[in-house]
Amino acid sequence: MYGLIGQFRSHPGQRDALVAILMENVEGMPGCISYVVALDPKDAEAIWITEVWKDEASHKASLSLPSVKDAIARAMPLIAGFGMHQSTLPVGGTGLPGR
Amino acid sequence: MYGLIGQFRSHPGQRDALVAILMENVEGMPGCISYVVALDPKDAEAIWITEVWKDEASHKASLSLPSVKDAIARAMPLIAGFGMHQSTLPVGGTGLPGR
Repeated sequence: MYGLIGQFRSHPGQRDALVAILMENVEGMPGCISYVVALDPKDAEAIWITEVWKDEASHKASLSLPSVKDAIARAMPLIAGFGMHQSTLPVGGTGLPGR
Repeated sequence: MYGLIGQFRSHPGQRDALVAILMENVEGMPGCISYVVALDPKDAEAIWITEVWKDEASHKASLSLPSVKDAIARAMPLIAGFGMHQSTLPVGGTGLPGR
């Protein structure tokens, strides 16, 4: 498995719109085992994404899906900046259906 | 929902033993929706945990489960230090069964 933990921040007042775009594609991405979109409770512009993929290739392939490319194009203007970006090697746990 | 993203490091050579302890209780914790244990690919001692709970109370209650208390007692001597500890407010996504 391949994991990602990332944080980024929206422009002021744009977080909800950004979250809505991020949520469009959480279902149906081949090789995606877990994809959780979360708000930062202390930073009104910050979003945390935690992802688990079958492998790194699945994640890279997802970026070429037309629906994902379209979402990225609409999301980028709402993003003020990228924070933490950490890859991981998930060992196991709960909430990993279909792995 | 209530989320946690945390990193901590084992003493040298103890990461696998620490992961094994962490994996003992990933099933059966009331209110636990997702709990993923992952290795850091660039730091041989670092572990990342990403969690999604029904609510913060469920997470706090889990720390009083006898099996969890026992695991914590055995894990602590293997931990060299705690890094990032971030709470989140998960909005949704995949890999969230039973929420």
